[in-house]
Amino acid sequence: MHILVLGGAGMAGRKFIERLARDGQLGGKPIAKVTAQDVVAAQAPKGAAFTFEAIVSDLSVPGEAETLIASRPELIVHLAAVVSGEAEADFEKGYKINLDGTRFLFEAIRLTGDGYKPRVVFTSSVAVFGAPFHDKIGDEFFTTPLTSYGTQKAICELLLSDYSRRGFFDGLSIRFPTICVRPGSPNKAASGFFSNIIREPLNGIDAVLPVSDQVRHWHASPRSAVNFLIHAATMDLAVVGPRRALNMPGYSCTVAEQIEALRKVAGDAVVARIKRVPDPVIDKIVEGWPRNFDPQRAIALGFKAESSFDEIIRIHIADELGGTFVK
Amino acid sequence: MHILVLGGAGMAGRKFIERLARDGQLGGKPIAKVTAQDVVAAQAPKGAAFTFEAIVSDLSVPGEAETLIASRPELIVHLAAVVSGEAEADFEKGYKINLDGTRFLFEAIRLTGDGYKPRVVFTSSVAVFGAPFHDKIGDEFFTTPLTSYGTQKAICELLLSDYSRRGFFDGLSIRFPTICVRPGSPNKAASGFFSNIIREPLNGIDAVLPVSDQVRHWHASPRSAVNFLIHAATMDLAVVGPRRALNMPGYSCTVAEQIEALRKVAGDAVVARIKRVPDPVIDKIVEGWPRNFDPQRAIALGFKAESSFDEIIRIHIADELGGTFVK
Repeated sequence: MHILVLGGAGMAGRKFIERLARDGQLGGKPIAKVTAQDVVAAQAPKGAAFTFEAIVSDLSVPGEAETLIASRPELIVHLAAVVSGEAEADFEKGYKINLDGTRFLFEAIRLTGDGYKPRVVFTSSVAVFGAPFHDKIGDEFFTTPLTSYGTQKAICELLLSDYSRRGFFDGLSIRFPTICVRPGSPNKAASGFFSNIIREPLNGIDAVLPVSDQVRHWHASPRSAVNFLIHAATMDLAVVGPRRALNMPGYSCTVAEQIEALRKVAGDAVVARIKRVPDPVIDKIVEGWPRNFDPQRAIALGFKAESSFDEIIRIHIADELGGTFVK
Repeated sequence: MHILVLGGAGMAGRKFIERLARDGQLGGKPIAKVTAQDVVAAQAPKGAAFTFEAIVSDLSVPGEAETLIASRPELIVHLAAVVSGEAEADFEKGYKINLDGTRFLFEAIRLTGDGYKPRVVFTSSVAVFGAPFHDKIGDEFFTTPLTSYGTQKAICELLLSDYSRRGFFDGLSIRFPTICVRPGSPNKAASGFFSNIIREPLNGIDAVLPVSDQVRHWHASPRSAVNFLIHAATMDLAVVGPRRALNMPGYSCTVAEQIEALRKVAGDAVVARIKRVPDPVIDKIVEGWPRNFDPQRAIALGFKAESSFDEIIRIHIADELGGTFVK
């Protein structure tokens, strides 16, 4: 099979493609080719038996989507997005990339006219929700985003459900928790500090905590994110029915609990590298974000995540740091 | 003040403009001008003290929105839409008119760059919801439309909330119940029969009932629809906060209860003009529609509707038939 990964140079895309390279197959079907599209060139995964192609293009430019699906990939994993902070800072860019780009893709598929009906996995976000919330957000809670990013994700979910219902493709939107611990350098996501305060101290570097440690949030590891994508790409979607946007499972905890988990796993010296520097802009954005979920539907459909923040930190140390860290 | 009504030649637009002509003011402000835009020419209301202008244009053509707001109307009431049956039959037309047209309007307002910040009232629909439902749909229930029309309305609601949050205009989306009894000829809305089975028999004409009389639905009169628009145009929106889509109040009843109300108000001979001709296409569409609501927020914010179907029929006889009907 041929798999197209949009946003393939990003963290989730890279890890998903590395996993495909390790597995060699997806849902029992051998993988012949993976195409990774992004605005920068994606790196080829090590040891892949499949053909790998990196395409540098901008999905929000008319005509690019048609080119990307010209070879009719059976699976399209759409991870490409301007992150929340950037979409809030640059209104036009956010709508262009996150909404128009996605719509161009969906339209390109619809207009092939040759019976092409790929599986489309779209990564949405818990940013489709906006405060105030109940203690736990249930599967039927309404989407009232408080950011343009969340608005764009919610709109794309609606489009995906309608295009799936009309039979143009077979899609699923999966609402990622905040992915933690994100490897690599900080990006422009307002949620970055949730990872920074774990990743940087484990590397011997100070990290800034811009919010109160009583902020509660919803996390899953990069490893879980890849598992979500694999499951969404291979599961039977007929049982999902027409409601094609799912809250993924995750783990809810406060920043204080994150810090205590770090202390337990890595010790006081590592925790001492977290510096408190309140940032009212970040604080205001995060205030509107969801804190906890009751994702019964996704769990019943076979999606799985971590059950403690210790586990999330240990996965980071195992997958990113070769099992060790700076004490 | 200057009021722009998009879709001003339609039923709700016409009735809203007639009401403005009778009142002469809106929220205590004298009305200087009403512009009614539509794809056909809107009729001037009788006895209006304000200047009336009818513009024939297509909002989904780039540039038209800019022209329509060139004179900076303080209030824009956006009623223009391709109805549900048509948006389902013609996928491209539905998205072009119902989504792109609305987005062009919102973008035109955003891009004025001169501090223009009108009130925007957008008529959405209970079609943003899709079955299965609980007994009554609450204010926090999620939008999972089962039609392209409902998808387009839900997307426009999200855009309106985001543009309002960002301060580009001050908007409110109001989700109309099915408006019953619709005057005039049947339109392409799949919900048309709810009105046809009342209106046609009262005119001495047979009407087709295409669904089971156990179908339950959510109604409000055209008079209430106008009241919703007036209230949405004049109320304090600061108290609404960022969740700018509201379920309007209405009256829930089965088709059997509609028929019994007709019998009570108009007699057996009128009811005998209803002919049962099942239509599986209509049946399938209606199956996914909401039946009942608990619109606490809208009621608390001062929106009002009917409390019986008798009342809905009597309003129709009073407002449309001069107080009489064909026995």
